[in-house]
Amino acid sequence: MFSSWTLAVGGATAMVVGLCWACAPIRTPSVASPIYGVTLPNGYRDWTLVAPAQEAAPLDELRAVVGNRKALKTYRVGARPFPDGTVLVKLAWKHTPSPDFPPASIPGAATTVQVMVKDSERYASTGGWGFGRFVNGKPVDKAQHETCFACHAARVKDRDYVFTRYAP
Amino acid sequence: MFSSWTLAVGGATAMVVGLCWACAPIRTPSVASPIYGVTLPNGYRDWTLVAPAQEAAPLDELRAVVGNRKALKTYRVGARPFPDGTVLVKLAWKHTPSPDFPPASIPGAATTVQVMVKDSERYASTGGWGFGRFVNGKPVDKAQHETCFACHAARVKDRDYVFTRYAP
Repeated sequence: MFSSWTLAVGGATAMVVGLCWACAPIRTPSVASPIYGVTLPNGYRDWTLVAPAQEAAPLDELRAVVGNRKALKTYRVGARPFPDGTVLVKLAWKHTPSPDFPPASIPGAATTVQVMVKDSERYASTGGWGFGRFVNGKPVDKAQHETCFACHAARVKDRDYVFTRYAP
Repeated sequence: MFSSWTLAVGGATAMVVGLCWACAPIRTPSVASPIYGVTLPNGYRDWTLVAPAQEAAPLDELRAVVGNRKALKTYRVGARPFPDGTVLVKLAWKHTPSPDFPPASIPGAATTVQVMVKDSERYASTGGWGFGRFVNGKPVDKAQHETCFACHAARVKDRDYVFTRYAP
């Protein structure tokens, strides 16, 4: 009986998935980062801007941090620490001269997408934050993820381990 | 009769405004730009990022362009021209060294907010775009607004007069 029900539900699911394929882009589930198990959050490219930034050579990047609603609400009221469920995503691109306007630089090729997720229980040993660093949608290796928390803890522990300030 | 009706409506409006003052942040209506009559759109600070940019000295700024839904939809499908109702907003801040991480630069004081509104009928003589340039929420003078379209037309006419490309 359970098997039949499962089969029926499975068939219905396949039909729904089939319909969705016809009308929406196919999403490949994000692979989780080592150590933290953080994935690229759905829809982050639509999230609100926290602030842009520039990183000098050798990385030579333009960057933008965006946040989910919890992140933005917390930034705007000036509260710290960020609540559980806060997610911040930093997008980065090569810093490239504008072909249209010489004084300007614009984003070139995308380089990394970096994610911070607040879960004070799950990530108790790293200030409540889980980290993910992605290149072409895939997480980088464990060695790179081992550097995340140490740097944040050394430099911005007093701001709940978050570098980026809100740009009003 | 018309006067009484106007007075009655005026009174009701005052009551509604009074109620709103009690429950929501006070919004100062944006003053319209000269020539174009463009105002700062409500809620633009929550809009989706199109791309960040950097502007070299003497302006020495970090910038970010955000867009409303029509703008983002058009960018993402790669269509041009932008449809009527498209709004783009460029936020700009002084380019400031990060006190936390020497290779990084971050937004300092806000400088200007610049708006482009697509209305192919109203702005037929300027490629369908109306322009607004604001400092501290107020539009700059007519002379500055006279420079907007000439520069966009000279450099990016073939991209519907829009400099900023979408950064994926």
